[in-house]
Amino acid sequence: MTNPKTFALKGSICFSADPGHLVSEENAYVICENGKCAGVYRELPERFRGIPCTDAGNSLIIPGLTDLHLHAPQYSFRGTHMDLELLDWLDTVTFPEEARYADLEYAGKAYRIFADDLKKSFTTRACIFGTLHVEATELLMDLTEETGIKAYIGKVNMDRNGPEDLQEESAESSAKATVRWLEDAQVKYRNVRPILTPRFIPSCTDELMTKLSAIQQNYRLPVQSHLSENPGEADWVKDLCPDSEFYGAAYDRFGLFGGEGCPTIMAHCVHSSEEEIALMKQRGVYVAHCPQSNTNLSSGIAPVRRFMEKGLNMGLGTDIAGGHSLSMLRTAADAVQVSKLRWRLADDSQKALSFAEAFYLASAGGGSFFGSTGAFLEGYDFDALILDDSFWAYPGTLTAGERLERLAYIGDERCIAGKYVCGEKLF
Amino acid sequence: MTNPKTFALKGSICFSADPGHLVSEENAYVICENGKCAGVYRELPERFRGIPCTDAGNSLIIPGLTDLHLHAPQYSFRGTHMDLELLDWLDTVTFPEEARYADLEYAGKAYRIFADDLKKSFTTRACIFGTLHVEATELLMDLTEETGIKAYIGKVNMDRNGPEDLQEESAESSAKATVRWLEDAQVKYRNVRPILTPRFIPSCTDELMTKLSAIQQNYRLPVQSHLSENPGEADWVKDLCPDSEFYGAAYDRFGLFGGEGCPTIMAHCVHSSEEEIALMKQRGVYVAHCPQSNTNLSSGIAPVRRFMEKGLNMGLGTDIAGGHSLSMLRTAADAVQVSKLRWRLADDSQKALSFAEAFYLASAGGGSFFGSTGAFLEGYDFDALILDDSFWAYPGTLTAGERLERLAYIGDERCIAGKYVCGEKLF
Repeated sequence: MTNPKTFALKGSICFSADPGHLVSEENAYVICENGKCAGVYRELPERFRGIPCTDAGNSLIIPGLTDLHLHAPQYSFRGTHMDLELLDWLDTVTFPEEARYADLEYAGKAYRIFADDLKKSFTTRACIFGTLHVEATELLMDLTEETGIKAYIGKVNMDRNGPEDLQEESAESSAKATVRWLEDAQVKYRNVRPILTPRFIPSCTDELMTKLSAIQQNYRLPVQSHLSENPGEADWVKDLCPDSEFYGAAYDRFGLFGGEGCPTIMAHCVHSSEEEIALMKQRGVYVAHCPQSNTNLSSGIAPVRRFMEKGLNMGLGTDIAGGHSLSMLRTAADAVQVSKLRWRLADDSQKALSFAEAFYLASAGGGSFFGSTGAFLEGYDFDALILDDSFWAYPGTLTAGERLERLAYIGDERCIAGKYVCGEKLF
Repeated sequence: MTNPKTFALKGSICFSADPGHLVSEENAYVICENGKCAGVYRELPERFRGIPCTDAGNSLIIPGLTDLHLHAPQYSFRGTHMDLELLDWLDTVTFPEEARYADLEYAGKAYRIFADDLKKSFTTRACIFGTLHVEATELLMDLTEETGIKAYIGKVNMDRNGPEDLQEESAESSAKATVRWLEDAQVKYRNVRPILTPRFIPSCTDELMTKLSAIQQNYRLPVQSHLSENPGEADWVKDLCPDSEFYGAAYDRFGLFGGEGCPTIMAHCVHSSEEEIALMKQRGVYVAHCPQSNTNLSSGIAPVRRFMEKGLNMGLGTDIAGGHSLSMLRTAADAVQVSKLRWRLADDSQKALSFAEAFYLASAGGGSFFGSTGAFLEGYDFDALILDDSFWAYPGTLTAGERLERLAYIGDERCIAGKYVCGEKLF
């Protein structure tokens, strides 16, 4: 009997196995064998004759995309209050909204909208912030689990500098809540897994960071947080941590900045110093580059070319709701756009990103945080999207690569005609 | 008998009569009386009792938006070849594509797609570049006429520095073709009107500019062109016009830079000097600010705050296909976004645009080029859009202003439930 997770998709296949190089094969087959990719072929190989084959016609077939950084509770207010900078935006909009997730009824309503949209999106893998509330975060995990998308989801830790209704009472209670959450969440899910999520240095006392470090080691958890996003925030961290030479060092002294057994994502890194970049490289820390958010919150433009030159691990994030769009394909286009403005306005020695480079970051680049995902290479998890771009009429003909670039700029989730994660069809 | 062009729309009404101020009235009426706006009211005034009223429920009702700058023949390839800067992009992609419009069959196919999408868009008024071809430009005018949108459309003039297949033989033949086009186009249409369209200084000899100046005066035509878009282009103009103190002066010496009887739009103005800005102010020249295009072509970010301080006439343009999106609501969000990056990276004395300011530019700001349009003020042309944002679920409640901002960031043409120009319902 043919295994239902062994099949072929036929269409215009596009993927990127290394930055700057887009592979495309028209009228070709990509094979899924027991949930793993078994390669791309112009003709169906002998040993796969007879497996089920979905002919997607002229549609594009691309790997699933990874959103390395987003805040699920902020999805509700995306695209509003866009006239504020980071710290004001946190105090005025974000913290009051996140406080509402203490109410499970509201959380259920809002997270249902989020999960429904995430399922319909280009995203097959995501690293997601919840709120500090254990129950709401589990609800978010339940709903995300149902989508079939693979995600790391974090209950947020914050025991200082928050408003009264969005701050944990003490380092002790924050750590306790985290353990309570982990005991449940570690074992409960197939698609979602917990990730340790100290909000950012200004939200976490040294005492809390010490406790989180112990939890990280005990549960062997990955870590996600924010780094060097905005000048105002960076100055604040300097005041709070006079002993840390740079922002990243404030995580590193607690062992929460990458290294063996501690896979770590740091969002933004817009204003990272050379020392900070060097430590990220040394520790294998992932940069989650969030171009739309960094624009909306007036943070600036991250030196992505520099990160690439240095060989840092890197992917892209929507940073909902600093970013407003859930589309990882649009995020790739945004990354190209801001890199051009950085080249023109700030540093013309740093070449802008090509679309191929940005697409790599959105697929295999960020995907590697989840292991071998994000490219149609043998042995990679079979995450795939079928994209039908016929809605956006074109008077002539385009190559597969041109069509993919075009969708990143002018397309939206309407083009997604099929979505697979580890060989399972989500729709 | 009630005039069919006298009616009321009821819903959540939003408009801007001055920069920085968004008027909104929920559950209110906006009246159209013989194609003109007769004001916004919480209760239907006595004298309008009995006129037809469309209850749009909870939908937003906003003025139609004006796209001050776009190239119809480039619509076909929007969102592709985005890795090039202006002059390379013109030579490699744009000129070869525009040359194809010599073929009326291709032109018909491509312009039909453009006109269909324009009709469905947020745009009710537009200033459009065609190609240098008379027949194809008339075809574009025919198709745009059918949409019901009001537009200025220009046959492009270019007699130097083009490729062999996209350049007019001489100043003489370019002028002759222009007159042939005008004799036909001046009288033929109700919704579309011709506009004189020298492509840009590098494409037009002095001899051609002299002839176009005579034609402008003879036919009392408005003018559209490009100005100070990109450093490479600006340097080229300096070489070509050693006698002009700045780029704009190269138009002005032919009387094609605003002033009495010569309403003029100049697209971009990213690198305009203070002298150029002063002359634009003096001559009443309109700036068409095209944030998306200026990003895609690595041109930079125009000093929009400076233009506002100086009181320049200004609106927004998509600049299809330097810009990739036809959405003028997205263009407003783009204008906010790039102004933040300019503030952060280039000049923090120039405050970023608020959404209200950007929306003003997209509606009444650019609309004023067409007379009294773009706001729900008494006597203004009744151009309106009904926007149903229920597709983008929200877990709580939002004000009308927040909903409009949100649509600019996350919405698209799917939300347009009704469109009116001068009181005529397009759909």
